[in-house]
Amino acid sequence: MNLDTLYSELTLKTNAKLVLVVLDGLGDIATQAQGDMTPLEAARTPNLDALVAQGCAQGRMLPVAPGITPGSGPGHLGLFGYDPLEYQVGRGVIEALGLGVELKPGDVAARANFCTLDSKGIVTDRRAGRIETAVCEELCGLLSKKIRKIGDAEVTIKAGKGHRFVVLFRGKGLEGPLTDADPHREGLVIPAAEAVNPKSAKAKKAAKLVSDFYKAALPVLAGRKPANGFLMRGIAHQPDIPLFEERYQLKAACLAVYPMYKGLAQLVGMTRLDGPQTIGEQLEQYVAEQDRYGFFFIHYKYTDMYGEDGNFEAKKRAIEEFDVALPVLLRKKPDVLAITGDHSTPCALKGHSWHPQPVLLHSAFSGSDKLLRFTETGANQGSLGLFEAKYLIRLMQANARMFDKFGA
Amino acid sequence: MNLDTLYSELTLKTNAKLVLVVLDGLGDIATQAQGDMTPLEAARTPNLDALVAQGCAQGRMLPVAPGITPGSGPGHLGLFGYDPLEYQVGRGVIEALGLGVELKPGDVAARANFCTLDSKGIVTDRRAGRIETAVCEELCGLLSKKIRKIGDAEVTIKAGKGHRFVVLFRGKGLEGPLTDADPHREGLVIPAAEAVNPKSAKAKKAAKLVSDFYKAALPVLAGRKPANGFLMRGIAHQPDIPLFEERYQLKAACLAVYPMYKGLAQLVGMTRLDGPQTIGEQLEQYVAEQDRYGFFFIHYKYTDMYGEDGNFEAKKRAIEEFDVALPVLLRKKPDVLAITGDHSTPCALKGHSWHPQPVLLHSAFSGSDKLLRFTETGANQGSLGLFEAKYLIRLMQANARMFDKFGA
Repeated sequence: MNLDTLYSELTLKTNAKLVLVVLDGLGDIATQAQGDMTPLEAARTPNLDALVAQGCAQGRMLPVAPGITPGSGPGHLGLFGYDPLEYQVGRGVIEALGLGVELKPGDVAARANFCTLDSKGIVTDRRAGRIETAVCEELCGLLSKKIRKIGDAEVTIKAGKGHRFVVLFRGKGLEGPLTDADPHREGLVIPAAEAVNPKSAKAKKAAKLVSDFYKAALPVLAGRKPANGFLMRGIAHQPDIPLFEERYQLKAACLAVYPMYKGLAQLVGMTRLDGPQTIGEQLEQYVAEQDRYGFFFIHYKYTDMYGEDGNFEAKKRAIEEFDVALPVLLRKKPDVLAITGDHSTPCALKGHSWHPQPVLLHSAFSGSDKLLRFTETGANQGSLGLFEAKYLIRLMQANARMFDKFGA
Repeated sequence: MNLDTLYSELTLKTNAKLVLVVLDGLGDIATQAQGDMTPLEAARTPNLDALVAQGCAQGRMLPVAPGITPGSGPGHLGLFGYDPLEYQVGRGVIEALGLGVELKPGDVAARANFCTLDSKGIVTDRRAGRIETAVCEELCGLLSKKIRKIGDAEVTIKAGKGHRFVVLFRGKGLEGPLTDADPHREGLVIPAAEAVNPKSAKAKKAAKLVSDFYKAALPVLAGRKPANGFLMRGIAHQPDIPLFEERYQLKAACLAVYPMYKGLAQLVGMTRLDGPQTIGEQLEQYVAEQDRYGFFFIHYKYTDMYGEDGNFEAKKRAIEEFDVALPVLLRKKPDVLAITGDHSTPCALKGHSWHPQPVLLHSAFSGSDKLLRFTETGANQGSLGLFEAKYLIRLMQANARMFDKFGA
């Protein structure tokens, strides 16, 4: 029997409140240069410490598989309980979500950027001299006005930062992934995007669409300097993902500040609660909305951002800021609270990594691992052990008493 | 290559003695109400402590999968090394085993109970006023006498406690599971049991059998008040499970007191050693029979029973009683000794749970984890880590030097 089917069959509806707090990129590594401490270990976290003293289970989670460093897409899909190897979300889709473009299953999205072409169509600058955002917005506006449809597919073009933008095709019978319409270096012409799987008629249709889009769009940009061309990458369709509410019997809300995380939550059918701009405001909104949802995904960006900068002190302070806000959340006593990251972002690596992220689980039935604090080293000794992130919500459901017994 | 095939190919026959002691429902959680201790942590266990000091490996085991709370069936099948998702044993089969009814592969069993029907066949009391066991035995005796066969299938009826009994059909080409012949509430007629998989001809045959059984049995009960009807649930066949001895090259014996555990052991082909009524007597019988078997499954019920009662002190004392008896077992120095539970039964939950159970493994080659005691918190730090219970016997075999090297 399939494990997901079993979980589904055992699921009982309850009024329990489950809260998943994602401190993005929380996990870190201790190095001698950093005093043999991680930011989480170095941070002053009196409120987390008090929560641990009340009784928490800890452990470490593999975002995907040993040694795999995930992007935000697979990182969050795993956290949401969807096997990141089974549900792959293309880069174009993630980028579109990040710009707040709403997607439907089957939509094909590409990340794009303006470039400079010479008279023979050879790419001479892959970033069009890094044009300013205002110029990008103007050009995207122009393209949007001139090109609303290609064949029977609707086209949406949305500007990003600098020379970046996304293109979305909404039509029938489309599918990714396609190869990049990008030579990946200067001095070559733009190659045609082609179906990665040449047997897929849907992907071939999508490739034709991209080719026709080029035919329509390049003349619009003709004479525009330096941005007289564009490259398209990560061309993929939005996968059809089982809805969170059906999968878990939990009505879910997303409290995130950055569009990409709102988009990832929407991808699985969570409701976006817009407005809050700080973790304090996010937690206040959780308090206000607690009665209306069974599950809350609360996303905090800054641990990742400062990890990417390699800024140990700032990452430590970001954790401390979360700790200061935490009592707001605890006021409402959720039945099950999990605090973790979507992956590690060690300062020493200045980027995402494969190191399992620490996770803390608190409920009336989590038991106590008798640890003094929530840290990477402590989590290594926790009762949750080392497990794949995709099981976290299942453990949260168990702690919410949402599963019937399996067998007699 | 399939892992089971690999294990099988590497298996060497030896004269090693392997002992698996199951302290049912052993695992627990530490809560503040219980002084931040588990019963295992609170218990005085000088003999276990001495064993740990001699060198043991510890770890924690997932009975089935993260968050899944198993019944005794899946819990023990997992411990015996059979994937509980692959080998599912229906409720009727477990109930029949629990009453000491011997089953063969393909037998279809149902848990049943007497109920009260009105003149229109509507269920007015699903438990027939909770008739006494003696009345149930009398009615089952009557039914057994009148109905020995339905078509070509033999029928066995065995009384349980109060209004409960089991019905066993032994015939050719039968299969479960069937839907319940039980409206699950009063005020409705008894629905017909139907094949869960309507494409299974065997299940349809079983459904017809159940229907014919009702036609034969209801007239026998007519006029009997309050038990003039009966409901049937969990109708399933005994799965065909590979035999323990073939799987592990170990002749296995079961030392259990309660029928269900004897039944589960018989399901995989272990020999029942009847007689002992206390853990001391069970261990004495192990000593007496050690030469005749390679593997012993010794089952101790009371840790689970008191966990279900939420009785921390009694669960602690049950562990202490086991500890007092332990030296009897150690006198015979088994080559490999594992002590664990089939699942956790935390006092705070008053029932089975999903929390990984602690496991202790002792052999000349187990190594020492340098822990002072056998506890949940200690086991979190053990060298066995967190693993699925179905691998435990493989680890025991490895410790018994029963596996050849894989590859050069």
